[in-house]
Amino acid sequence: MANSASGDSVIDRVVRILDTFSADRITQTASEIGRRSGLPSSTAHRIVDDLVASGVLERDDEHRVRLGMRLWELALRGSTALRLRQVALPHMETVQATVREHTQLAVLEQEEALFLERLSHPKAGANITRVAGRLPLHASSSGLVLLAHAGSELRERVLAAPLGAVGPGTVTDPQRLRGLLSSVRRTGVAVSPGAIEAVSTGVAVPIRESGSVVAALSVVLPRATPTEPSVAALQAAARLIEADLKAYRV
Amino acid sequence: MANSASGDSVIDRVVRILDTFSADRITQTASEIGRRSGLPSSTAHRIVDDLVASGVLERDDEHRVRLGMRLWELALRGSTALRLRQVALPHMETVQATVREHTQLAVLEQEEALFLERLSHPKAGANITRVAGRLPLHASSSGLVLLAHAGSELRERVLAAPLGAVGPGTVTDPQRLRGLLSSVRRTGVAVSPGAIEAVSTGVAVPIRESGSVVAALSVVLPRATPTEPSVAALQAAARLIEADLKAYRV
Repeated sequence: MANSASGDSVIDRVVRILDTFSADRITQTASEIGRRSGLPSSTAHRIVDDLVASGVLERDDEHRVRLGMRLWELALRGSTALRLRQVALPHMETVQATVREHTQLAVLEQEEALFLERLSHPKAGANITRVAGRLPLHASSSGLVLLAHAGSELRERVLAAPLGAVGPGTVTDPQRLRGLLSSVRRTGVAVSPGAIEAVSTGVAVPIRESGSVVAALSVVLPRATPTEPSVAALQAAARLIEADLKAYRV
Repeated sequence: MANSASGDSVIDRVVRILDTFSADRITQTASEIGRRSGLPSSTAHRIVDDLVASGVLERDDEHRVRLGMRLWELALRGSTALRLRQVALPHMETVQATVREHTQLAVLEQEEALFLERLSHPKAGANITRVAGRLPLHASSSGLVLLAHAGSELRERVLAAPLGAVGPGTVTDPQRLRGLLSSVRRTGVAVSPGAIEAVSTGVAVPIRESGSVVAALSVVLPRATPTEPSVAALQAAARLIEADLKAYRV
């Protein structure tokens, strides 16, 4: 349908355009979008005009565009991400009230950990996670939980690919990573000191629905903080989230 | 670009398809989507296939489709909605800790109040608001705040249109509504007993950025609860949100 000479559908081109926006790049000109999306300038301008007409993008007084509230509404209203996040939020707040650092919820998406929610104490330590941001599966504690419980095909693909070091504690050796994943499955928790940032430790536990792991619940702590109280708080919250997911099944 | 015989762009048709999803309709078949979007079945099937190929929609084992995590990510990562909501969330939690009912954040979108966030106490009273859901401007306390500070053109349009009763306390008389909006501007707060549900009162205050009202912060209380402590908590939180929006301007 409506394919360009290069075989992309209009939808692919729209996705490439939306993909140029980020937390550091909330507004752009159509020309910047064209350059960053790799689309011909005339194509980018035409699609941006159509996206503005439909409310997916909004144009400000300086003729710059940003993601529209209408897109936000369309993407969230019926989303499984919103359902998961709404069910998890009250229990994340309970964890956060105990831990008073960062409490996060992540899912597996396109071979990375995608973060659906993050609660942070105003005085919390370092944490690079962002809502709607991603981290590599082998590096973050959430990613390790998701990878440990992923299909063996994905696991072998990640183990076979180069494992980049994000922090000084990232496990980059495939054999050590295999052992770590097996220990995450056995113990039900991933603890990753320095895997993302030298000064922080990630602690994550799985959340299951209908027998499958659907998300990882995690905290990020200063490196010197004992992890045991957080593990207990996370595991208690995970049980309550699982019960609520069961009660509110759609 | 790629317009159909009826003049719709592909993007319009995609928006119509995404618009068929809701909190009560998280998964659908392509045929149901075709019927609900009013698109010819073959068109709906073709666009749904393209949307699945790009990750905007996801197909489950039973060949039903749902909104994709990829769409959620694209819509949120660079969105002003997410920025506003992230800045507001810690202060909403402070309000919620005092009020222990429902605390909400809404923006004006296409002549309705669109809710960006809702925190609810497990034992809170009735509240029909949903994240990514909407309420009429003249009926909800958030809507009244947004309408009171909207451009006069929008205000006159709403005052001239039929004003439906949502709850027993909805103000449906244009002259009374005009007076109410003027009082909301003067007092800086909207209090709406029974405007949405007979048993609840909405209380909302404006949040300003660069001199304009960009959102409404509100609580929903049981009808018998005194509103004064909530007004104080909302106004204190609104000041802090405004200060943080100023500090984190993009």
